[in-house]
Amino acid sequence: MTSFGERVRAAMAARGQLCVGIDPHVHLLAEWGLDASAAGVREFGLRTVEAAAGLVAVVKPQVSFFERYGSAGFAALEDVLAAARETGLLVIADAKRGDIGTTMDAYAEAWLTPGSPLEADALTVSPFLGVGALDGTFELAGRHGKGLFVLAATSNPEALPLQRSRHADGVTVSADIMREVSARNARSTPEGQWGSFGLVIGATVDWTDAGLRPFSPIAPILGPGFGHQGAEPRELGARFGDLQEAVIASESRSILAAGPDRLAARISERALLYRGD
Amino acid sequence: MTSFGERVRAAMAARGQLCVGIDPHVHLLAEWGLDASAAGVREFGLRTVEAAAGLVAVVKPQVSFFERYGSAGFAALEDVLAAARETGLLVIADAKRGDIGTTMDAYAEAWLTPGSPLEADALTVSPFLGVGALDGTFELAGRHGKGLFVLAATSNPEALPLQRSRHADGVTVSADIMREVSARNARSTPEGQWGSFGLVIGATVDWTDAGLRPFSPIAPILGPGFGHQGAEPRELGARFGDLQEAVIASESRSILAAGPDRLAARISERALLYRGD
Repeated sequence: MTSFGERVRAAMAARGQLCVGIDPHVHLLAEWGLDASAAGVREFGLRTVEAAAGLVAVVKPQVSFFERYGSAGFAALEDVLAAARETGLLVIADAKRGDIGTTMDAYAEAWLTPGSPLEADALTVSPFLGVGALDGTFELAGRHGKGLFVLAATSNPEALPLQRSRHADGVTVSADIMREVSARNARSTPEGQWGSFGLVIGATVDWTDAGLRPFSPIAPILGPGFGHQGAEPRELGARFGDLQEAVIASESRSILAAGPDRLAARISERALLYRGD
Repeated sequence: MTSFGERVRAAMAARGQLCVGIDPHVHLLAEWGLDASAAGVREFGLRTVEAAAGLVAVVKPQVSFFERYGSAGFAALEDVLAAARETGLLVIADAKRGDIGTTMDAYAEAWLTPGSPLEADALTVSPFLGVGALDGTFELAGRHGKGLFVLAATSNPEALPLQRSRHADGVTVSADIMREVSARNARSTPEGQWGSFGLVIGATVDWTDAGLRPFSPIAPILGPGFGHQGAEPRELGARFGDLQEAVIASESRSILAAGPDRLAARISERALLYRGD
């Protein structure tokens, strides 16, 4: 079984670093001529998967826009997840789940167990209850060759007071999360490979201000904030330094606003900007 | 429309402070003779609702144990939520959702919009992205007479480094969350009433160590950790001081381990311990 970290590495080497966010906002559904319903988000998701297949390495469905429609929305999401994985796209379920003990384990089982209806390749998780509270989830993910992305430093201004707070030893909350996640990669990653436990670091985050430093072993960084939100592909090096090759650059609105008919062309155009070749 | 804060206050005055957690763990399903499946968690939830009806004010389904079974598990949860609300129980969906902007709004709409398939009376939310990132959710909850419980200080040891970190002004992360949530209650709560924006504060949290202080206006405190996890009803005063009447004391395992046949008797017995009369 190839680990998630190595699968992401190979997929990005082949198709570049662009990740297409699948965010069926109500206003986008309207623009696409779809209903604000479970059927609408299903259609939106399937069309986006179809357009992205073969062009990018990773897609990232935003779970809240499916959860909005309850169990019917989740059934739609299951179809979208399955379709994406069948076409060979890696799927990050952006759910930001976070709890403790067996409660957290149940979330990990839902999203990361092979054969589960909501099976994805990786899940975003929240460390508010402590990175250590996610240890059952790290264990489960590793066992199944799945990945995690732990929220570490986000770009929204409301997050700064909490994420820049300092531990008793002076380290920022964001830096401590990075340290804790890196320690878990160090314990579980063979020499020369990428770790499977990634971090969410906003594309426009100031690393110095956040107290962040380059880490090893390399592990994928999910970077929202590209495209519409202001960061551009040519800035990858300036923003992420030596870790730039590990950045999964997520764009949503800048792509989805093209509408269903121009979607594949837009993805193709944006994807080129995030390719090394 | 009566606010959530006032509805909780009236319900606890009538039926006491015990909240029954609906946590269909795999091992509990087995003990109850139920399958680890969507049908199993549905039956578990409905039986617990039936046993709790009329005996307590509040029930708290743990969403992860339903999400474990994907869309079918969510359909089961919808039935449990509807059954609970029909019997007059107040329902706190323990989902710990947390995101930003319109993404967070979609979670709020899913759980707090009247008529939504997942409609609950209140939702637990995570402030890792900033209490301010939840402002759309506060607004939506207030508009519909719904409640929120923002994670503030949890009792699990892995949470301490993050939650005891300090802002630039010296305030702990937990205390700042309390301050931010209280400010929103102060703006939206008529004199003499309870606010609708509550906090999650573990029953065994040391308030001094966490930097917590009594707040006003009074708003409900969701206190996990009673029963099996070590806190007892007679300690409400010692642990929560003047705010003790606002504590929704949540017990799960201590009640659910009684099994389906002895469940109503156990709830009745435990509920008595949390009644003022």
